[in-house]
Amino acid sequence: MTSQVQANLSALRALMRREHINAYIVPSTDPHSSEYMAAHWCCVRWLSGFRGEAGTAVVTLDTALLWTDSRYYLQADKELAGTGFSLMRESDIDCPSIEQWLSENLSEGDSVGIDPQLATVSRYTQLGKAFAEAGLALKSADLISPLWQEGRPAIPTTRAYPFDVRYSGESATSKLARVRTEMAKKKADALIVCALDEIAWLLNIRALDVDFNPVLISYALLEKDRCTLFVLPEKIDDKTAGYLHEQGVELRGYADIFSGISSLPSDAAVLYDGSQLNRALQEAIPSACRQVDAPSVIKALKSIKNETELAGVRRAMRKDAVALTRFFRWLETEAFQKNEHLTEVDLMDKLHSLRAEQENFVVESFGTIAGYKGNGAIVHYEATRDNCAEVHPEGMLLLDSGGQYLDGTTDITRTVWLGGDIPEQAKLDYTYVLKGHIALADIRWPEGTRGNQLDALAKQYMWQAGITYGHGTGHGVGHFLCCHEGPQNVRTDMNPTPLKVGNICSDEPGIYRTGEWGIRTENLVVVREAPATAAATTNDRFLCWETLTLCYYDTTLIERSLLTEHEREWINRYHEHVYQEVSPLLTPDEAAWLKEKTKAI
Amino acid sequence: MTSQVQANLSALRALMRREHINAYIVPSTDPHSSEYMAAHWCCVRWLSGFRGEAGTAVVTLDTALLWTDSRYYLQADKELAGTGFSLMRESDIDCPSIEQWLSENLSEGDSVGIDPQLATVSRYTQLGKAFAEAGLALKSADLISPLWQEGRPAIPTTRAYPFDVRYSGESATSKLARVRTEMAKKKADALIVCALDEIAWLLNIRALDVDFNPVLISYALLEKDRCTLFVLPEKIDDKTAGYLHEQGVELRGYADIFSGISSLPSDAAVLYDGSQLNRALQEAIPSACRQVDAPSVIKALKSIKNETELAGVRRAMRKDAVALTRFFRWLETEAFQKNEHLTEVDLMDKLHSLRAEQENFVVESFGTIAGYKGNGAIVHYEATRDNCAEVHPEGMLLLDSGGQYLDGTTDITRTVWLGGDIPEQAKLDYTYVLKGHIALADIRWPEGTRGNQLDALAKQYMWQAGITYGHGTGHGVGHFLCCHEGPQNVRTDMNPTPLKVGNICSDEPGIYRTGEWGIRTENLVVVREAPATAAATTNDRFLCWETLTLCYYDTTLIERSLLTEHEREWINRYHEHVYQEVSPLLTPDEAAWLKEKTKAI
Repeated sequence: MTSQVQANLSALRALMRREHINAYIVPSTDPHSSEYMAAHWCCVRWLSGFRGEAGTAVVTLDTALLWTDSRYYLQADKELAGTGFSLMRESDIDCPSIEQWLSENLSEGDSVGIDPQLATVSRYTQLGKAFAEAGLALKSADLISPLWQEGRPAIPTTRAYPFDVRYSGESATSKLARVRTEMAKKKADALIVCALDEIAWLLNIRALDVDFNPVLISYALLEKDRCTLFVLPEKIDDKTAGYLHEQGVELRGYADIFSGISSLPSDAAVLYDGSQLNRALQEAIPSACRQVDAPSVIKALKSIKNETELAGVRRAMRKDAVALTRFFRWLETEAFQKNEHLTEVDLMDKLHSLRAEQENFVVESFGTIAGYKGNGAIVHYEATRDNCAEVHPEGMLLLDSGGQYLDGTTDITRTVWLGGDIPEQAKLDYTYVLKGHIALADIRWPEGTRGNQLDALAKQYMWQAGITYGHGTGHGVGHFLCCHEGPQNVRTDMNPTPLKVGNICSDEPGIYRTGEWGIRTENLVVVREAPATAAATTNDRFLCWETLTLCYYDTTLIERSLLTEHEREWINRYHEHVYQEVSPLLTPDEAAWLKEKTKAI
Repeated sequence: MTSQVQANLSALRALMRREHINAYIVPSTDPHSSEYMAAHWCCVRWLSGFRGEAGTAVVTLDTALLWTDSRYYLQADKELAGTGFSLMRESDIDCPSIEQWLSENLSEGDSVGIDPQLATVSRYTQLGKAFAEAGLALKSADLISPLWQEGRPAIPTTRAYPFDVRYSGESATSKLARVRTEMAKKKADALIVCALDEIAWLLNIRALDVDFNPVLISYALLEKDRCTLFVLPEKIDDKTAGYLHEQGVELRGYADIFSGISSLPSDAAVLYDGSQLNRALQEAIPSACRQVDAPSVIKALKSIKNETELAGVRRAMRKDAVALTRFFRWLETEAFQKNEHLTEVDLMDKLHSLRAEQENFVVESFGTIAGYKGNGAIVHYEATRDNCAEVHPEGMLLLDSGGQYLDGTTDITRTVWLGGDIPEQAKLDYTYVLKGHIALADIRWPEGTRGNQLDALAKQYMWQAGITYGHGTGHGVGHFLCCHEGPQNVRTDMNPTPLKVGNICSDEPGIYRTGEWGIRTENLVVVREAPATAAATTNDRFLCWETLTLCYYDTTLIERSLLTEHEREWINRYHEHVYQEVSPLLTPDEAAWLKEKTKAI
């Protein structure tokens, strides 16, 4: 591997010299700004040997650097050793940004290259501005494709299929009409759609081109009177082609998006979301066109689930709850008896097999995190067969998992105590997390409120103990689409998007005690209108959450003295609801076990 | 008045025709972006007859409009009748913005004028961009000064005086050095200072040019090796001139700021805050200069109070508490016996006289709001001798007031029940507000947290009852300066500024029940470092508030069943602290009365 990296580096530098490029940036992304990339676009891995999911390589004629965040420091140290690449620890407060480093280390007049397909319009603009201030030029150039030919994985070709309207609740024709209405409001003649989940939602079409995400790699170009899907032809069989034809969607090859855009009429106003569109597509827009860069209208529409989607999610939640209940019962009553060397990966496999038994299950919605004891404190922990802990009937287990069902997408975290005496601090931590989880789930708020206004509600109790966590409290969730979607979320970051009726979000505060345990409690919740109250003083409409996830909390970990009466009642009411919804789908033995787990405290 | 407005309108339109200006915008502001304006700059009042504090007049050749918000609808309806001006209700959801209205009602090629002294760089840029998109031109033109000569109030000339370092805690020389360090970080050669409180803070100088604000109307220009104050010479006596000379500050006339700026070296980098600098000053910057528009460095430094300032604020708070305790005792035991027709204005006068007895009291820090019964629900209520309610020993009184002492600035709201049976809803409302007030005052948070992340803590209890309020929860407060200052605050609005140790903020949730009562409870609090806890899981430094204000809450209004044990203890601890701090400054009778008011619940 090391010698291959050195050879790749030399080849890249030779090409850079030929192209008069003094530094070349290779980001970890694909042309669709996807969270999970197909192997075809893992250019950072090919170039540097680094296999982490997030990292950017920067190569000058004499230096090779890799920026990544603290999750990947250990891994990067190991994988970059001897490659010629040095690690830039971007979570460290004194680590310069890529722009800063290049501005300080290149000479005025030098050029920096980047593949414009792998930079969004926003990122490209930001880089260009920073470099201009330092007297550097930014150049669009794909220097990796000419070098990485042999052994480069192909663009995935999983088969696309129509997603039935009995799951989506709205035809593609209707969605296209609604998006065109939004385009008209912005006086746009054409909309370039680049994000894979937006295309899947818009056209009611699915595939499995990307791990965990039922999307197909493609572009869409929506005009007033036509809609074109740009996709590798081998992905579309006759049935799907027929379906798309019925919806008025024309088909062209994946790479034809460039000619599709460049042949737009010169008086067209072209709409896109610059935080998603790749720069190469923007460069293809005829120069006379008016460009309208605005937050994605499809993303906003997609985030509001209709009643059919919500009914599907509720079905998926019941099935997911059956799998989880069976899993936790197996863990408590059978697993350790049958296997003395049970590992975290065994747990992941068992949970997968139980989900896979459920109707309409397709795939997991992300890689299961099974973190035993101290591993639970590693926020993005990934157990592998070669590198995972044995699990014993003692201590804490954090389990974060989810499923893609045709009915909808699930994502749930539960933390359970497997046996032995529970340390006082473990109970306190679990209860701070649970109190925050309930405070967020239980709040009502006036319409127009943003998720970042609610974030502190989930943290207030642990903050009083001097404890906090670094990840988001809640992310949007797609409907049989990406487990992470926007535009709404519940985080500390500033996000101008208010929470809207029909938005699904996670509610997942956590506490991570290095080397000891990680505790996270996560349900999915959906925004609903709150009933009016007699005490109201204004005409504000109030919104609230409905909890969708159906799985018991480990009550043995609760420090009762910290709960208010209201919180205790909330837990009992939730547990009663869980039992009522899930027990009819269980065997009598399983139901009796769940009855015990959900008994009132 | 009406005929005068009509004459002014005609004169303005004649001048607009001569200057080829199709629409003219007159904002309610001064060249320093002040919250309170001197009468000299009340151009909207002169032009339209509207006397409200916030409003923008827009005059075309055939239409005259005034935009103002819902606080002023009634007043504007009355004052604009017969003037030729129509009201634009800008709080209404369907009210077009000024830019929108002009874009739709003017013709391509038309010009819009505005006095560049009365528009910040940010606002001017925003207008220019909107007009450019509609094919309109924005022109800088002062059309009011040529017309408004007779009877125009002069620029105020109150005497400036040095503000002793025993109050400010830091010499001007030291502040100038710190600001120059910040300038150097931004590679700036010159800094234009336009905000009056920033100049007062920077140079340790005060006057009373603006109602409630001890500032002097002036500009400052800070260069690497000189600092110039631009001010009317009659404001500066020999003592102040001598003081300024000692600090290395040169004096020039107020209007000389333009030549001061235009004669900056052409290679100078000029720093300013475009949200504060007026456009006329920006236009004076030599075109070869590099302009650096960045959030004010002085505002950020000023917001962090030093220990001398904080010790002063604590002194001011004790004095303010003496005045308030005496006021409420007078109200309870004497006022109604001595005056059968006691009015809201009588209360304001009495409170003023009690504050004025205190050492180093200078002026009130804003116009007292004394809102009896339904008047308390009018958020910006202003009682006047001609138009105010009689107060009787029954029902609710909201009292929001503050003082400017040389030691510091106070701002406090208390709501008290004057007699009669307390309605259940009044107790609920009072208790929701108090619980929110305590939740905010009591929270700890990791350093880096913004005020808008904490805002919901103060609202969570009333939200559960379907109640909210429209004003901010907390504003920054100056030190013997403006009662409202930035950059920090606690509001719903997005504000990227994190709360920093030494920031003073108000904590003032409220509930307003139209026609019945207004309830607001306000203390000032200051950010301190929280003690480390043994349970911490990260290296985050935690911050917390120290409450500065010293005045009892009306415990008769508390619905005890809604309080947690922790909240009850918080109130008792606060009341004990109030008694300990304030009683030594009271007569024995007064102290006994306060003892009763602060007894444990």
